[in-house]
Amino acid sequence: MTTLLMTPGPTRVPESVLAAGAMPMVHHRSDEFSGLLVSTLDRLRPLFGATGDVLPVHATGRGALEAAITNLFSPGDEVVACCNGRFGEMWAEIATRFGLVVHRACSDWSRSIDPRDVEATLDAHPMARAVMLPHSDTSTGVLNDVAGVAAAARRSGALLLVDAVSSLGGVPFRFDDWGVDVAVTASQKCLMSSPGLSFVALSHRAWEAQAVARLPRSYFDFAAIRKALARARPETPGTTPVHIVAQVHAALTCIGEEGVANVFARHQQMALMTREAVSALGLSLQCPALGQLSPTLTAIRAPEHIGPAGIRDQMKARGILVARGLGRFESTCFRIGHMGDIRPADVRRTLDALAEILRSGTR
Amino acid sequence: MTTLLMTPGPTRVPESVLAAGAMPMVHHRSDEFSGLLVSTLDRLRPLFGATGDVLPVHATGRGALEAAITNLFSPGDEVVACCNGRFGEMWAEIATRFGLVVHRACSDWSRSIDPRDVEATLDAHPMARAVMLPHSDTSTGVLNDVAGVAAAARRSGALLLVDAVSSLGGVPFRFDDWGVDVAVTASQKCLMSSPGLSFVALSHRAWEAQAVARLPRSYFDFAAIRKALARARPETPGTTPVHIVAQVHAALTCIGEEGVANVFARHQQMALMTREAVSALGLSLQCPALGQLSPTLTAIRAPEHIGPAGIRDQMKARGILVARGLGRFESTCFRIGHMGDIRPADVRRTLDALAEILRSGTR
Repeated sequence: MTTLLMTPGPTRVPESVLAAGAMPMVHHRSDEFSGLLVSTLDRLRPLFGATGDVLPVHATGRGALEAAITNLFSPGDEVVACCNGRFGEMWAEIATRFGLVVHRACSDWSRSIDPRDVEATLDAHPMARAVMLPHSDTSTGVLNDVAGVAAAARRSGALLLVDAVSSLGGVPFRFDDWGVDVAVTASQKCLMSSPGLSFVALSHRAWEAQAVARLPRSYFDFAAIRKALARARPETPGTTPVHIVAQVHAALTCIGEEGVANVFARHQQMALMTREAVSALGLSLQCPALGQLSPTLTAIRAPEHIGPAGIRDQMKARGILVARGLGRFESTCFRIGHMGDIRPADVRRTLDALAEILRSGTR
Repeated sequence: MTTLLMTPGPTRVPESVLAAGAMPMVHHRSDEFSGLLVSTLDRLRPLFGATGDVLPVHATGRGALEAAITNLFSPGDEVVACCNGRFGEMWAEIATRFGLVVHRACSDWSRSIDPRDVEATLDAHPMARAVMLPHSDTSTGVLNDVAGVAAAARRSGALLLVDAVSSLGGVPFRFDDWGVDVAVTASQKCLMSSPGLSFVALSHRAWEAQAVARLPRSYFDFAAIRKALARARPETPGTTPVHIVAQVHAALTCIGEEGVANVFARHQQMALMTREAVSALGLSLQCPALGQLSPTLTAIRAPEHIGPAGIRDQMKARGILVARGLGRFESTCFRIGHMGDIRPADVRRTLDALAEILRSGTR
């Protein structure tokens, strides 16, 4: 029996998407593939809420998060990093690796970002050129207020870069309306495809920064990707991961058929089901509701007498994979992903198994 | 009807490899996937002829070629780049982008590298820390003498980095015996899989250089990849492209079943068939036989009255995709790939179509 993947990525890939990823190879510089690529980007744009450029990046999400930094900044540039979880912290570490001066804001992992904290950090560091923000941080299950942080960044004239890897496609995103400058997502979460491909939306202001940024880049150069996409037969530099593009295209067909509003409502419903069960079972959220919870996953404190490893092992024995805690929460927490192709019935099965494990009460 | 891909990558993916790439998603940090990853690297090592580290890199070949540079060098380091084709030139350009001082050797596109030219360039630039060499350059169809260049590099104490993207798996490679320090290959050529994943073999000397190299890197950091692979349950940093790993594993099963010596012999046979036909049809090779020709593809001068675009269009009308010329040869050349899953019968069909086009004599 296939294990039920209740992990916050990679997520289950629907049959039609698996089939699309098994098409006979097409050449990446053929009219046929170019049409598929363009159609994929056209379908992604509304999910980003962006009318401008959405670029494919031939890497996993982590590569695209790095690309956002190397494309927009020069060594010594100051940035503010929102660090209320492992992935916010990781992005800050990447920026440091590339010689940026990183000012951390909101490093309390138990709650959503308060835009006023970002504003205060920007006030304290008036040279900061940008704010880096995870939308949904999968280490905490917290959703951050992109609109609020965007407004704070805009007041200081700073750019806003958003890691939307575990939100885009499961949670509404309004790139243009909120005033985001860079948003990054990847294929293997709400986009229900194989890992290995990312997408980046860019604002006009982001392109202005890109034009003068001096960090070295080649593979990840956004201008080169834009140039290749602007050709008579749009393409990407190098060899496009054609099968993952085909998968994402098929996944976007699924999303279109279900209706994007229904997809978002389903994610909300699954999150509510999970949180109600957590409460009914006498458990508690790793990051209680000081702020907004992510619709795409829930981080739960394991009862001490079973422990997170005990929960995971016993779930696994029941054919269900849940994720371990990350970073500060490694020894206390387990995480249930409810995103992408996951349905309420899958969540019900998972929560029933959890209830059974708690009733048995053994490690 | 599916188009016959006679291109030098991406190449046709065998049915069993497509099926492996359509397995239900497995989590990248599961025992099941870890076993698949380790088995894939174990099977790749003999193809490299390497007993040391072979690392997966979550990018296409171009990304891994960049990774070789950012992992081994510091800004201002001098290197010698062998530039007898578009891909040698591209690698030199990437190195320049990252602040290396590049001395070009062997920039004649019509012939294989002469190791004496490399030696002379190293003598003229005694500070050069490495030589960068394409094994098979797909822009010219020329195979370079890795053993000879390795010996030249070793005499000067320089490292040897080899782009084996279009050779590994189709042509013998002896990483240890030749004394190569870094060799890069990718999934979509002789390894008969989807684009999006690369592999890098590293020598002990390469690791020594890696430890002191100061170019910034995060996503592509080889030490981080090695560390993740050394865990009790081997893994990679970030989300592994699990389906491409599964494809490469299945492709290596195909290679094992055919027998690697038979695979190499088949590539030689297809290259000979193609060159004999070129001669019999009164055509000429883009880079005549001053040196060794690559067993994986053939670059052919198009007859002037038809032109390369005419050849490609008429081949396409017959259901066969051949590649355009690259760089200096764009207006004169077309290229036939005969690598990976391509069989002598596919080559025969291609050459028959070519003969028919020449007989018809129209543009």
